[in-house]
Amino acid sequence: MRPVNLRWPLIAAFVSCLLRNVSTAAEPGRPENDAAQGETQTLGIVLYPGFELLDVYGPAEVFGNVGKRLKLVTVAEGAGLVKSAQGPRSEAEFGFDDCPPLDLILVPGGFGTLAQLNNARLLDFLRSKAATAKIVMSVCSGSAILAKAGLLEGRQATSNKQYFYLAANQGKDVEWVKQARWVDAGDRVTSSGVSAGIDMSLAVVERLYGAELAQGISDGIEHNRHADSTSDPFAKFIKEPTPKQPKP
Amino acid sequence: MRPVNLRWPLIAAFVSCLLRNVSTAAEPGRPENDAAQGETQTLGIVLYPGFELLDVYGPAEVFGNVGKRLKLVTVAEGAGLVKSAQGPRSEAEFGFDDCPPLDLILVPGGFGTLAQLNNARLLDFLRSKAATAKIVMSVCSGSAILAKAGLLEGRQATSNKQYFYLAANQGKDVEWVKQARWVDAGDRVTSSGVSAGIDMSLAVVERLYGAELAQGISDGIEHNRHADSTSDPFAKFIKEPTPKQPKP
Repeated sequence: MRPVNLRWPLIAAFVSCLLRNVSTAAEPGRPENDAAQGETQTLGIVLYPGFELLDVYGPAEVFGNVGKRLKLVTVAEGAGLVKSAQGPRSEAEFGFDDCPPLDLILVPGGFGTLAQLNNARLLDFLRSKAATAKIVMSVCSGSAILAKAGLLEGRQATSNKQYFYLAANQGKDVEWVKQARWVDAGDRVTSSGVSAGIDMSLAVVERLYGAELAQGISDGIEHNRHADSTSDPFAKFIKEPTPKQPKP
Repeated sequence: MRPVNLRWPLIAAFVSCLLRNVSTAAEPGRPENDAAQGETQTLGIVLYPGFELLDVYGPAEVFGNVGKRLKLVTVAEGAGLVKSAQGPRSEAEFGFDDCPPLDLILVPGGFGTLAQLNNARLLDFLRSKAATAKIVMSVCSGSAILAKAGLLEGRQATSNKQYFYLAANQGKDVEWVKQARWVDAGDRVTSSGVSAGIDMSLAVVERLYGAELAQGISDGIEHNRHADSTSDPFAKFIKEPTPKQPKP
């Protein structure tokens, strides 16, 4: 231990943490959350069995560094532990029945998506909470769930590229965008696969809290930010479905 | 529901999942885990209060997609829920006392690092498990903990850039590398801040299981891979400590 040298990074870390939370006041009149700067908003992250870890925790890392103006809560059909697609289990603090009002909602993807497309309790919960939320977001195949719940009607949306048509076959009046890292349709923001959720979240933080905070978080997590929503190097992985053959 | 269209992505998803787990056999003679292809190895992810979410779940996403050859377990001082720096809580399946043998170990960073530098139980646990592990990895300020435990002596290592000297002041004979996305020192692999853990994990997967699987996982999670360990756009954020002033 070298106490003199150690004191510096300790102080720097805490001052920086403090500054991150209070000094990144958004530019006057620009970010949407200017009016609500003193008010804590709540982001509800929806968990279900087989959710993809990074779909949840990329955005949770970004939104979790906004500071006191944004509180993260996790919610699942029932409160308790939820097993991810990769194995590790995470806590849902709330069940659908006791979930507080949500300003922002995030729905992840993962192989568990398939079962959730037929889970009426989840679809009802999302419809109910979306009615009063400012923005409903999805990562990866989470947009299939939003579309199935009817929450993307009349809007542009995207999904992960390797299983694009899992989402694109849901919903009735959704304009699916193939070449997009994420699509901001105002009250709905959908991202492409897994790690694209980090870039989408930074874009939403920029919209709500300003560019300075978004870039500060991106630099703090040493993320090679992908800031152009229309540039999508992974669109080449879309596999077009085989046309239905007429029966002989 | 359009059952015909939906059937295709369902089948494709499951076949692809299956292929990812079994068909990505490493090129003969190259990857280190060739000899152990039939044997499941165990990655232990260490949790402590105030761990950084993406430090854990970036690598967990990558290693969790290796398939049946690699099992992920979470471990903390005591089994149960562990609160992250960003708020959400994760389950530690094992406590230090009942943790199974580990082939790979991952230590995250986060503001909780500061307290863990003086947690003898954690440092002892890491020294004990490292003695029989193949690779001990860290993300972000996790390398400060490895250094404090004496596990980086005689080796090159790196850490996150904004609090670089928190790590660089630990250990006695560590060669700290400022310009590095990650540093592979053989039995120790340390990464730079937060999202750099994803690139480090892909490099370790490539070393153990082959380039094809690593790139397949990277493409599957739509990650803008940073494949050169020596290229580091975030090194500019290192703040050199102020030299100690002589007392007047």
